Amino acid sequence: MIGVFDSGFGGLSTVKELIKLFPQHDMLYLGDSARAPYGNRSTETVIKYTQEGVEFLFSKGAKMVLLACNTASTDALRFLQQKYGNEKKVLGALIPAVEEALEKTKYGNIGVVGTRGTIVAGNFEKEILKRSVFLYHPASKKAQKIPKVFSQSCPLLVPLIEEGWIKKPETRMILKKYLLKLKSCHIDTLILGCTHYPLLEKEFAKKMGKNCILINSGKAQAQKFKEYLHLHQEIAQTLSQNGTRQFFTTDCPERFAELGSQFLGQKIGDVQKIEF
Amino acid sequence: MIGVFDSGFGGLSTVKELIKLFPQHDMLYLGDSARAPYGNRSTETVIKYTQEGVEFLFSKGAKMVLLACNTASTDALRFLQQKYGNEKKVLGALIPAVEEALEKTKYGNIGVVGTRGTIVAGNFEKEILKRSVFLYHPASKKAQKIPKVFSQSCPLLVPLIEEGWIKKPETRMILKKYLLKLKSCHIDTLILGCTHYPLLEKEFAKKMGKNCILINSGKAQAQKFKEYLHLHQEIAQTLSQNGTRQFFTTDCPERFAELGSQFLGQKIGDVQKIEF
Repeated sequence: MIGVFDSGFGGLSTVKELIKLFPQHDMLYLGDSARAPYGNRSTETVIKYTQEGVEFLFSKGAKMVLLACNTASTDALRFLQQKYGNEKKVLGALIPAVEEALEKTKYGNIGVVGTRGTIVAGNFEKEILKRSVFLYHPASKKAQKIPKVFSQSCPLLVPLIEEGWIKKPETRMILKKYLLKLKSCHIDTLILGCTHYPLLEKEFAKKMGKNCILINSGKAQAQKFKEYLHLHQEIAQTLSQNGTRQFFTTDCPERFAELGSQFLGQKIGDVQKIEF
Repeated sequence: MIGVFDSGFGGLSTVKELIKLFPQHDMLYLGDSARAPYGNRSTETVIKYTQEGVEFLFSKGAKMVLLACNTASTDALRFLQQKYGNEKKVLGALIPAVEEALEKTKYGNIGVVGTRGTIVAGNFEKEILKRSVFLYHPASKKAQKIPKVFSQSCPLLVPLIEEGWIKKPETRMILKKYLLKLKSCHIDTLILGCTHYPLLEKEFAKKMGKNCILINSGKAQAQKFKEYLHLHQEIAQTLSQNGTRQFFTTDCPERFAELGSQFLGQKIGDVQKIEF
């Protein structure tokens, strides 16, 4: 089974993309909604919570776990990978989106939108700049295009999306305000650095216009995971394929099912509540 | 010292009212912002978090603790009062506002606005109806006015206020949508059942018009606390009066100081971060 861990519902937008690529694979999802959002917590706390979540998924039969949460990926991924070594496989979000943005950007003007926690931490920016040293080597056509990163936190989008206000004029107005500065920076690529934002992808696309490529971080992660399994057949073969999905949450299961269905793009039936 | 516990900054609007009535009393405040908002969390989770916060305030020298958070008052007050008995005193929000609304309503059409958690739990409504049996007795002038309660959850107001979007047109538009139904019910009294809402009190007043009395729940709580101390001189005497204020938060202290100052109506200097 493929395990997916997130701090809340948002990671279900990543599961939606995984299902498109792996429709028959069995999947387990845990959303730690009772302790969400992770964005404002200390690194130690995020490591502790992520480890608890990941170990729960392994105990339920996951053969590998994807972290859908950007904060968990930033703070806990390296720790967990070092801890588990080859024994248990954990893959993160963040870097797949960064790599896709660097591949697709025309002029190197990359925008990042996310929660306040994500933007203040600045990890997308750090990863882009770290990688750009290698990608934009002198032999490349893009040699002169050392990327510039423009970040914008959009703290009201998560509550608006969770309220289902996706198509309301107020949401469009607020989104427009958030994107004003990014538009004036002429970014050509925009990373949607929050698993909630794919629900507003059409609105983002309208506001940013045709010349800006949107990077859906969950989609990028699912795509990179496909490439990973292609390279690691020994792992791919351990993943069962009976088309089952199991959902776990640390908070109210009814609300998880209701809201989560929007992110997953299909109805969620049974949700089990667990406690840490 | 008087301890005040809230899930975030909001309770500082209650502290503002407390300071008006008790300018010399020493006060301790804890805002559990890292785990806010409580409104969407399960009852068990709210009880656990509230207990941790309240016990922290007692450990720091509080002689009694006021819960400024409606969700915490609804879900955890009775549990804590039963647990502590006469040993440690904890008082809640909610009932003071209910009593004031029942005293002031002309026609018994009472509206309640709050977070989703507060409204779904329906505790304002339950408390109003429970009390109305006594208040609206046959000998009273209001004998025919068994109150009707109209509730409306306004989940986006907290994030909008916390983003400082108080005067933005989007906030006015969203508030208008939320109040549409209440206006059509001809309510004459509206309980602002969330400690954030006093920051939008003028907007609420404009939208509801002159014939609707607004009840600021923090103000009502401070007033009832004054009456409580008048009746319990043995407790009143244990409360030190050196005019000190101490602020604690589980999240970023800088953000707490910046945002909190708006709720308190005066600048907050030193804020200490704690972790659970």
